[in-house]
Amino acid sequence: MVDPSRLKKFHKYMEKECLDAVFITLPRSVYYFTGFNTNPHERFFGLYLVLGEEPVLIVPELDLEKATLKSNVQNILTHRDGDNPLKILKELTTQRIGKCGVQKEHLTLARFEEIDSVIMAESYINVDEEIQKMNVIKSQDEIVKIKEAIRISDEALYEGLKIVKQGISEYEIAAEIQFQRIRLGADGGGLMVVSGEKSALPHGRTGDRIIEEGDLLLIDGGVQKDGYVSDITRTFAVGEINAEKKRIYNTVLEANHAAIEAIKPGISFGELDTIARNIIIEKGFGKYFTHRLGHGMGMNNHEYPSIHGLNQDFIQAGMVFTVEPGIYVPDVGGVRIEDDVAVTKDGFEILTHFPKELTIL
Amino acid sequence: MVDPSRLKKFHKYMEKECLDAVFITLPRSVYYFTGFNTNPHERFFGLYLVLGEEPVLIVPELDLEKATLKSNVQNILTHRDGDNPLKILKELTTQRIGKCGVQKEHLTLARFEEIDSVIMAESYINVDEEIQKMNVIKSQDEIVKIKEAIRISDEALYEGLKIVKQGISEYEIAAEIQFQRIRLGADGGGLMVVSGEKSALPHGRTGDRIIEEGDLLLIDGGVQKDGYVSDITRTFAVGEINAEKKRIYNTVLEANHAAIEAIKPGISFGELDTIARNIIIEKGFGKYFTHRLGHGMGMNNHEYPSIHGLNQDFIQAGMVFTVEPGIYVPDVGGVRIEDDVAVTKDGFEILTHFPKELTIL
Repeated sequence: MVDPSRLKKFHKYMEKECLDAVFITLPRSVYYFTGFNTNPHERFFGLYLVLGEEPVLIVPELDLEKATLKSNVQNILTHRDGDNPLKILKELTTQRIGKCGVQKEHLTLARFEEIDSVIMAESYINVDEEIQKMNVIKSQDEIVKIKEAIRISDEALYEGLKIVKQGISEYEIAAEIQFQRIRLGADGGGLMVVSGEKSALPHGRTGDRIIEEGDLLLIDGGVQKDGYVSDITRTFAVGEINAEKKRIYNTVLEANHAAIEAIKPGISFGELDTIARNIIIEKGFGKYFTHRLGHGMGMNNHEYPSIHGLNQDFIQAGMVFTVEPGIYVPDVGGVRIEDDVAVTKDGFEILTHFPKELTIL
Repeated sequence: MVDPSRLKKFHKYMEKECLDAVFITLPRSVYYFTGFNTNPHERFFGLYLVLGEEPVLIVPELDLEKATLKSNVQNILTHRDGDNPLKILKELTTQRIGKCGVQKEHLTLARFEEIDSVIMAESYINVDEEIQKMNVIKSQDEIVKIKEAIRISDEALYEGLKIVKQGISEYEIAAEIQFQRIRLGADGGGLMVVSGEKSALPHGRTGDRIIEEGDLLLIDGGVQKDGYVSDITRTFAVGEINAEKKRIYNTVLEANHAAIEAIKPGISFGELDTIARNIIIEKGFGKYFTHRLGHGMGMNNHEYPSIHGLNQDFIQAGMVFTVEPGIYVPDVGGVRIEDDVAVTKDGFEILTHFPKELTIL
């Protein structure tokens, strides 16, 4: 059962901000507060909170059984495809709503216009930041779930690599890793296997390219398990790689180590990005590090914080985020080394355990 | 290269509706118009169209190489993590914008408020419906891509089923099917393998349940390939199943057949849903068919149309959608049989070729 203090804490925030009502619509936020995890696709769905009243969960009828089983909410209202689910919300909105909280970073403009036509609040406040603030500091329970997702990724990568050899395709490697992940119980997950000059495309796609001697092989991905995620990238050498590729690899590795070792409560995300970036700039690869250093993760693999030079927020104990410097030189190849790190009271714990020294396959 | 008439047709719509500008932000819509397919995650991204001017593609810098290679747009502007990408949009907005088109069903309220702070249009019009209208009628090229995604799904299911026997877990079956899909070149895809009484949860999750004699085994999923999707469900019998389960199966199969055979241009989606639903109601299972009959598919596996009783829109040639009646009896089990169907000039073509007669594994 989910920790009931989460909803209590959120109610206190509502009181403090004078929010008469809040409609929480992001599935993982509903999971966080209720223990019920679902993907309603485009169907109408949410947790409706009114100050001083019991929470109400609105779900598609096909989710009723699971919601009853898994959530800590007593009052569950359902609708079928073809029904007008706004009627439910209308019946719940018996009094005038002044300030209403919504999740502006998730709610589509179309869905917002529908909700607004029924709630007709005087103003709408974005509660994403408050929920993110709660999400960003992980409980021990949550870190255990993240570790389990990482364990699956690490082991699947380890097992999957056994089949890599010259002459095999990116697809075959990806298939083997996915097979291993699912065998290990992953609920889902993304994976990118790119090789050779394709590794220089940081958002490239797994394809039918055949692995050759001298290639860099970049494997990025993570799994979902029980609503929590992992995210790990390793880059390997296929046979002997040339001196330039080695220099790229070692520079990224140095940046990865240096940034991780600097992690402790009180330093800013901007500083962390700068530590990694300066190493890469010094070695002359600055213009090839074209993305931020990392991002928060937990229930999602792109959550707050975004770790880039302009983010002056401070690192706090209980945060979990990726550290993933990369260098992508067109026509040569790319290297990214990504770890998941939890911030402890006075330092860090690296959650990903896959080795980082250059491995020749 | 993508068909340039798509953008021309959309420009005509802009003229007709007096839209001074449109900002297209849904990645698959940008793919549809430009040929460039990406997942920008939460990064700022879109195709900015101003009447009488050349289209502008705004992409994260790490996508520049791919966008240059794949898109038909000359003017590509980039931003890095940490930049303020709104500056780009501001510089493009040199004149006053009266009506501006946006994708309200995709754009988040937060992103919209950012865009609005720069474009400051007098009003914002939802262009989703127009783009959906264009998307919903598939070209021959698009149907070829959908067929390729289906071919991968069908073959992966066929290969994956070979390992099913009593004593194996849902995870192991899912892992094998995913392995086969990726081996066959799928870019990604979802999969649900649920068995026994779990098959009665229409949005259940693959788990560690062991397959037993007498189980219903429901496998739902599809793959993405080159930006197009497949979506297929089959339900199998593990060994001998009892008479009630057989009756459920045969009722769903009859509903599936009857609905598909009624497909032709000119009948409504509501009628189609009713044809299937009436068969299920007649057999006494009405309250266990808790979802709509199907949904459009193509670039996405939940696109327009939504096939439910209240949708009085008419079927047109060139549409592709799923037909997926289901019956879910708690504590007994569930059956769903889902096909992908293309509408032809005077009838239908079933794109999924996996057999539907009750198969005993």
